[in-house]
Amino acid sequence: MCESNAFLKDGENEVMLMESVDTIEPCEDGLKLMDIFGKQIFIKAKIKEMTLLNHRIILESF
Amino acid sequence: MCESNAFLKDGENEVMLMESVDTIEPCEDGLKLMDIFGKQIFIKAKIKEMTLLNHRIILESF
Repeated sequence: MCESNAFLKDGENEVMLMESVDTIEPCEDGLKLMDIFGKQIFIKAKIKEMTLLNHRIILESF
Repeated sequence: MCESNAFLKDGENEVMLMESVDTIEPCEDGLKLMDIFGKQIFIKAKIKEMTLLNHRIILESF
């Protein structure tokens, strides 16, 4: 399926935040992510880059 | 495949901006979108919501 995995950029590393992300909703001071099972997280970060064909969402802190 | 279609919210309407979007890269004053054929556009807008399983990227003007 076409969900993606969300990673937080941490220097040269990427920390996996959530697998199988379906929806992404920017909010005032961060992002709300929901996976294909309906689990939601809120994170104080912004989108750095998304590559949908690679199923990757790279986030970075403000 | 897992690309998505990008729409710009215009009141109650949604205007198709780009089909088959693969990469999304936020920039200082907008977004750079690239489709699966390598075609790139820049748009002065921000992400309102993304639903990956529905292949939809909804953008809104600043």
